[in-house]
Amino acid sequence: MSLLDAALAYARAHEREALDELITCLKLPSVSAQPRHAHDVAMCAAMLKNALRSRGFTAEVIPTTGHPSVVGEWLQATGKPTVLIYAHYDVQPPEPLEEWHSPPFEPTVREGKLFGRGSIDDKGQLFVHLKACEAYLTGAGALPVNVKVLFEGEEEIGSPHLGDVLASQRDRLRADVVVVSDTPMLERGKPAICYGLRGLCCLEIEVSGPSHDVHSGQFGGAVINPATVLVKLLAQLKDAKGRVTIPGFYAQVVPLTPAERQVLAKIPLNPQVFLQAAGVTEERGEEGHTFFERIWARPTLDINGLSSGYQGEGAKTIIPATASAKLSMRLVPNQDPGTIASLTERYLKQLCPSGVRMTVKHLGEGKPFLTPLTHPAMRAAERALKQGFGSEVSFIREGGSIPFVTAISETLQVPCLLVGFGLPDENAHAPNEYLDLDHFHRGIRSMIHLYHEMAQLTLP
Amino acid sequence: MSLLDAALAYARAHEREALDELITCLKLPSVSAQPRHAHDVAMCAAMLKNALRSRGFTAEVIPTTGHPSVVGEWLQATGKPTVLIYAHYDVQPPEPLEEWHSPPFEPTVREGKLFGRGSIDDKGQLFVHLKACEAYLTGAGALPVNVKVLFEGEEEIGSPHLGDVLASQRDRLRADVVVVSDTPMLERGKPAICYGLRGLCCLEIEVSGPSHDVHSGQFGGAVINPATVLVKLLAQLKDAKGRVTIPGFYAQVVPLTPAERQVLAKIPLNPQVFLQAAGVTEERGEEGHTFFERIWARPTLDINGLSSGYQGEGAKTIIPATASAKLSMRLVPNQDPGTIASLTERYLKQLCPSGVRMTVKHLGEGKPFLTPLTHPAMRAAERALKQGFGSEVSFIREGGSIPFVTAISETLQVPCLLVGFGLPDENAHAPNEYLDLDHFHRGIRSMIHLYHEMAQLTLP
Repeated sequence: MSLLDAALAYARAHEREALDELITCLKLPSVSAQPRHAHDVAMCAAMLKNALRSRGFTAEVIPTTGHPSVVGEWLQATGKPTVLIYAHYDVQPPEPLEEWHSPPFEPTVREGKLFGRGSIDDKGQLFVHLKACEAYLTGAGALPVNVKVLFEGEEEIGSPHLGDVLASQRDRLRADVVVVSDTPMLERGKPAICYGLRGLCCLEIEVSGPSHDVHSGQFGGAVINPATVLVKLLAQLKDAKGRVTIPGFYAQVVPLTPAERQVLAKIPLNPQVFLQAAGVTEERGEEGHTFFERIWARPTLDINGLSSGYQGEGAKTIIPATASAKLSMRLVPNQDPGTIASLTERYLKQLCPSGVRMTVKHLGEGKPFLTPLTHPAMRAAERALKQGFGSEVSFIREGGSIPFVTAISETLQVPCLLVGFGLPDENAHAPNEYLDLDHFHRGIRSMIHLYHEMAQLTLP
Repeated sequence: MSLLDAALAYARAHEREALDELITCLKLPSVSAQPRHAHDVAMCAAMLKNALRSRGFTAEVIPTTGHPSVVGEWLQATGKPTVLIYAHYDVQPPEPLEEWHSPPFEPTVREGKLFGRGSIDDKGQLFVHLKACEAYLTGAGALPVNVKVLFEGEEEIGSPHLGDVLASQRDRLRADVVVVSDTPMLERGKPAICYGLRGLCCLEIEVSGPSHDVHSGQFGGAVINPATVLVKLLAQLKDAKGRVTIPGFYAQVVPLTPAERQVLAKIPLNPQVFLQAAGVTEERGEEGHTFFERIWARPTLDINGLSSGYQGEGAKTIIPATASAKLSMRLVPNQDPGTIASLTERYLKQLCPSGVRMTVKHLGEGKPFLTPLTHPAMRAAERALKQGFGSEVSFIREGGSIPFVTAISETLQVPCLLVGFGLPDENAHAPNEYLDLDHFHRGIRSMIHLYHEMAQLTLP
């Protein structure tokens, strides 16, 4: 039996064990944004290191001044290409808890779906690769290519220490191609390869007025209200046509070519599928652009959170001492997150009236990314996914951000292949996140095919 | 010894006991806005009923479909005027708890100040009257006037059931004059009588977009953001000159006469005292009006709270499902709270774009109030306060709201005398609320004088 056939047979025979091991990992609340979960993040890293070693990888936990990464390798395919697999094991905060139908860290299977925080973003996808490697190493005795892995613990907070890990592990991580699994499929059963990601710039704005919350009857009318100042600032960040008004925001945007607008116009998917997944009935966005241009290829600005004063039941008649907002801006080539942060801060300072103090905090950033559609690994991946899913493969872009992608492609100077298994309705970052179990197992088989296809490539 | 002298002597001899009984009452977290404290509110009502009975009053707890009131009377001063005393025993929510230097419901004396939620607003002022009555009844054997009391349990949530109590107890509460203690003095040691209150209209606005929080990368650019809609709505409620932009908002405002503007211009107090108490350096308000006009005699609109999406540590890149704001509008004669609520809701609906659902909830309201400066009880109170504090008495207005005042003056058709002992820096509605203990005891002696003065009046 060939390595490929042996690995495929093993994967089919061990689907239950694959699910069980993923469930064990999902039970760890590895929430990178919340300091109280730092120990859980570290526990998850240790679990993954042990999981790699038990399959025959060398592996170790690489500490950072934040959360650690896990690095490992299996390099016994002499003369064959080397594939670096990236995934992240940290997860988004689970709040609001009351909206989950089953607890976020007690993974639950209902109707072929595994519900739990991190099930699709990104532990489920990390396990697709872990299980594909296990299928070769345990089921067939060897991988057809050399495989390195980098499992990050800070993706959901903007990868603040990934640069340190890449710098210290640069030689160890060198590869011919990187495979990242943190992007969605087109829709159920329709695999896709993503060739572009938006960048990210996250800011927190805080406006302070009175030294403490004061009585709105005693002081209202003569004392500045920081919540009023904040809403006026935020209201000025986008115009009626859905365009961001920050001066210079669009200056570095590479315009879409007519050719790419045609590619995006041909995506075989009804935008209604996305809108239904978001629970809205109308599309709303920047004038002069189509749905897929808006979500994949145009920059945006969203308010992620607002907080000020009294938020409990009933009324509390105060002028609040402070008001704050969290913003995320999604960027496209060649917008630079640092430049965008500076432009935003400068504009806000220019708009902010006297009588309040305003601070702008940088919460994280990531550069936008595009990979050439002509790279031979793209076609290898297309063939692998077609085998795993029995369906045509689309080439798409993605509106989200993986700061890692730009960082590693810049540090290691290798192309990145973005092959993911998410769906638009899987509630990534939201309550009731889930993983489609059929996709999970097809994903494992697809990656078994991918390693086989990669072994045939002659890479430069 | 006269009744007056005996009562004054008793009050001076029992200052420690007066403080101790107030402290016992402050330990009960009678937070009317928070349903989990309903039992504490009821306990506080029972405590006050017993306190009245033990002094010789008849008293009972009057249930409502919300929190109860306590009504009592001592009517043995045949042929003398009847004074109705109003105060409230419910308190504001204590949040944010982490800003209190001592716990809000563990009253603590530091440097002559009693810190605790309700210490000044309004339990401390309720006890000023309770202790003045005790001084007469226990120390002198009788009050010089007939005294009725009405202690409310829902003032901090806009007195939703006070109308029911007034209707059912109308005959029992009939009096020649009402004395309310829930207004501030001019400053430390300077007593004041308040002849005007602003009204109140509290609203909560909620905007809903996606059916759940969605990923700002996956959907940002094509899905409407309810937080963005909310800030744009709120930003349009006031213009750059500090005027409320709701059409019709000022239509019923009775313009200030030149005479009253002169009275307000002569207030012997530096606005800096107020600004310092609020912890701000600059005055900010409606153009064309002075400080005291702005806080006492002009209507305002303030955001009391904002809530949307993720408010924890770090970034969470979502488009939130909902965004909400709490608003309080302070009104002046003859603005009607119901009309203002309707105008606001109509304007918001007109501004609100399609693609979101908006709800406007009424959280409470109170009518504005003015009492004639020429009423004889005004001069009686002036003499009493001058005796109690040894200082000239100012006639002022107040920016806050006591919905009770209009309700009772309209229901019982009697004038209301607003004599309070608060200070602008006593943190009413905020963390570290306190009562000045010297004012507390001078207040008790002033009210002893007031009942004596009232006994001399020939009321119509």
